[in-house]
Amino acid sequence: MNDQSSFPAVLERFIAIVGASNALTEQADIAPYLHENRGLYHGASPLVLLPGSTQEVSEIMALATETATPIVPVGGRTGHVGGQVPRTGGRDVLLSLARLNRIREVDPVGNVIVADAGCILADIQKAAEAVDRLFPLSLGSQGSCRIGGNLATNAGGTAVLVYGNMRQLCLGLEVVLPTGEIWDGLRRLKKDNSGYDLRDLFIGAEGTLGVITGAVLKLYPRPLGHEVAFVGLQSPQMALSLFEKASALCGSALTGFELMPRIGVEFTTRHIPGVRDPLANPHAWYALIDISTSDSADSARHMMEAVLHAGAEAGFVEDAVIAGSVAQQQALWHMRESMSEAQKPEGGSIKHDVSVPVASIPAFMREAADAVMEAVPGARICAFGHLGDGNIHYNISQPVGADKDAFIARWREVNAIVHAIVRAHGGSISAEHGVGQLKRDELEATRPAIETELMRRIKHAFDPAGIMNPGKMVSP
Amino acid sequence: MNDQSSFPAVLERFIAIVGASNALTEQADIAPYLHENRGLYHGASPLVLLPGSTQEVSEIMALATETATPIVPVGGRTGHVGGQVPRTGGRDVLLSLARLNRIREVDPVGNVIVADAGCILADIQKAAEAVDRLFPLSLGSQGSCRIGGNLATNAGGTAVLVYGNMRQLCLGLEVVLPTGEIWDGLRRLKKDNSGYDLRDLFIGAEGTLGVITGAVLKLYPRPLGHEVAFVGLQSPQMALSLFEKASALCGSALTGFELMPRIGVEFTTRHIPGVRDPLANPHAWYALIDISTSDSADSARHMMEAVLHAGAEAGFVEDAVIAGSVAQQQALWHMRESMSEAQKPEGGSIKHDVSVPVASIPAFMREAADAVMEAVPGARICAFGHLGDGNIHYNISQPVGADKDAFIARWREVNAIVHAIVRAHGGSISAEHGVGQLKRDELEATRPAIETELMRRIKHAFDPAGIMNPGKMVSP
Repeated sequence: MNDQSSFPAVLERFIAIVGASNALTEQADIAPYLHENRGLYHGASPLVLLPGSTQEVSEIMALATETATPIVPVGGRTGHVGGQVPRTGGRDVLLSLARLNRIREVDPVGNVIVADAGCILADIQKAAEAVDRLFPLSLGSQGSCRIGGNLATNAGGTAVLVYGNMRQLCLGLEVVLPTGEIWDGLRRLKKDNSGYDLRDLFIGAEGTLGVITGAVLKLYPRPLGHEVAFVGLQSPQMALSLFEKASALCGSALTGFELMPRIGVEFTTRHIPGVRDPLANPHAWYALIDISTSDSADSARHMMEAVLHAGAEAGFVEDAVIAGSVAQQQALWHMRESMSEAQKPEGGSIKHDVSVPVASIPAFMREAADAVMEAVPGARICAFGHLGDGNIHYNISQPVGADKDAFIARWREVNAIVHAIVRAHGGSISAEHGVGQLKRDELEATRPAIETELMRRIKHAFDPAGIMNPGKMVSP
Repeated sequence: MNDQSSFPAVLERFIAIVGASNALTEQADIAPYLHENRGLYHGASPLVLLPGSTQEVSEIMALATETATPIVPVGGRTGHVGGQVPRTGGRDVLLSLARLNRIREVDPVGNVIVADAGCILADIQKAAEAVDRLFPLSLGSQGSCRIGGNLATNAGGTAVLVYGNMRQLCLGLEVVLPTGEIWDGLRRLKKDNSGYDLRDLFIGAEGTLGVITGAVLKLYPRPLGHEVAFVGLQSPQMALSLFEKASALCGSALTGFELMPRIGVEFTTRHIPGVRDPLANPHAWYALIDISTSDSADSARHMMEAVLHAGAEAGFVEDAVIAGSVAQQQALWHMRESMSEAQKPEGGSIKHDVSVPVASIPAFMREAADAVMEAVPGARICAFGHLGDGNIHYNISQPVGADKDAFIARWREVNAIVHAIVRAHGGSISAEHGVGQLKRDELEATRPAIETELMRRIKHAFDPAGIMNPGKMVSP
């Protein structure tokens, strides 16, 4: 451990690795790195390092091990659980991957992109498109989140239904270990049973086991047919029935199935410029259906028509519209993706990122609504999300006219109510946003003790000195 | 550690847990457990335990920890790398999961099966079929391999192209740890980012971190359309070009693409009863194409015709036949799946289970053939496998009339030749069969040292006493 007096000398050694122009030492420059978007966490740090190569990351980690300096890896800083925010003590040094933003190789024959961890997701998507391929990860924050952060959090998003989370989209990794050693696991193999699954351990570890510096990402054929529909329906149960019908009819061509409540449509039409209600009359619930086909453009259209027809016949669908152009498709997705943003002008919002078995969604929604409305009369529940994955962003806007701070002060209390119902359904209280600082203690208090114990042993095996993003994911 | 004199008393304590009728103590009864199908490994053991519940497995492991008794978990004993064979010392106790063979639940709404680890794969497939669902794992040994072994080895097989390996087919696990503690990770969630990925660490760990006793397995819709074609072509390059064409036309409807050499067709028609060459004239290479569609039966037929038409137009396809009945489809798959068996009457066979990036298959096949034929003139290379996964079972039958033992004695030498070419292409020398005893030392000698070091740390974190299937996967 460093005592405080020697700390500045250590800082100089870190700065020397990247060069003074790639280190932020003024608090005004460091400030944006010390909190996250929702304002739940504020930390402190004396230094942000912006290395320009894997080798420099390696030297930083070697020095961190030598000097027992805690390191917080930072990507696009769009995370929702405080994983990228340093602790309050002021000793954590931030390691930004932003300058490691080179796409190393695009291989449309091998169907891979090899990229630095600091590449912005949208740039990876564009590089794939340029060779007529699809990189399917799709998130609201894709214009600023970085692929290393997507990997560190096993990001999900709107295309998980068919393509899976980041774990399914990554073939290989390059990781700098806490000691500075570099693990070159940049494989391009579909099959490799040659040892323990190190890759999937680093993916989703939130920078607590090592620093991901590069990755081999999977590319897919770009679909020939793509259709998006917006459906009005009566209840989550009707949405689930429609989802099951659509799954049966489309198989893996069903690339998205999102659920939205009426209030979410009201919020977005009210606050997000350009968003209009696509249907003539209001409906209690809505589904956004996304279908992609590889054989022809027509087949997606035929499938979508078949799904809506069958859904109407069976009484699941009240009204529906199929987007008539790419612009209309984007507008429907934009409504869904700006739903969280549209809550902000409505005051405080207490959020949950939960999953339950898909078949349990209707019961979960009913039970959670009853419990929340009893605890917070007037609360406006804006629960939307990836019905096909069983993953709901169970957001609750404050009652109209209520005091925002007083409402937000009930965050943990409301979490406890919702999460108890999630657990009763065998669900997860951290479906896709991860653990970070926000969920760590609740998970440790509620999951089987042996599970936390195994995670702690993994942490210790990889990072015995406890310098990798300490305090996140597992308690010391 | 036990000294030899106290071992029998310890044995009695193990036997008391399962009852005398569920313990094998006679060497005649134990003998089948002491080797594997290929005859590469022969071990020794004083005792086979057949527990009837997770609780009994837990008690066995607790006693194993107390007495430092090495335990080898055993499933259907179909593995090819000696993972299920005890060491030669004679102290390893075998723990068979065969009596843990209950399907706990079949849920066609939630699309899961919850099963004991000892269930036979074919029984899981049948249980899925009974509720009009598909459990896609499909292997030559499916009539006798057990799902716990499939999980422990992250089994692959013929449907990996779309459905993935076991890791992609499993949502949750129940695992008994070396101490006897039970980890209940029997989740049914599509998304769960609530900590390190313990599930994928136990999957593929070959019983070296704990004993898998139960699993939640994913079900899929049963395809409405299914077509199988058998294609004659000139070279692996033509097969790759056809695969790329088929991928583009079919997307995720392309559920299988296997490559076979002429000599494999000759061996199967010669030695496997009922197998006939489906094409009128011989071809240097063959592809088996499998297409499954969810929307209609017709669409699979149309896709297959489109693939073969496009392949013929482009000059990739010399001749082709589409199976006209389910029986014909099964006959084509039977030919492919009995290709390894058909090598046995031809004498010794030196085997490899390798993968390379899919695009490197033609170069790998050329280079490996040149090198092998130079080292072993007259060798008959029967290299077949999952072209779409980049995974080739590179089997080499002895020259006609050669001495079998002398040929087999060159196993390691020939491995070294083939594996060097695999590594030059960034491939894996253990694509789907795992590490066990067969690949451990070669992997440790050739992979980056830090990778073995990380694996050893994981092993130590989960099994500090080294009693879980010791000697397999990583050296002590």
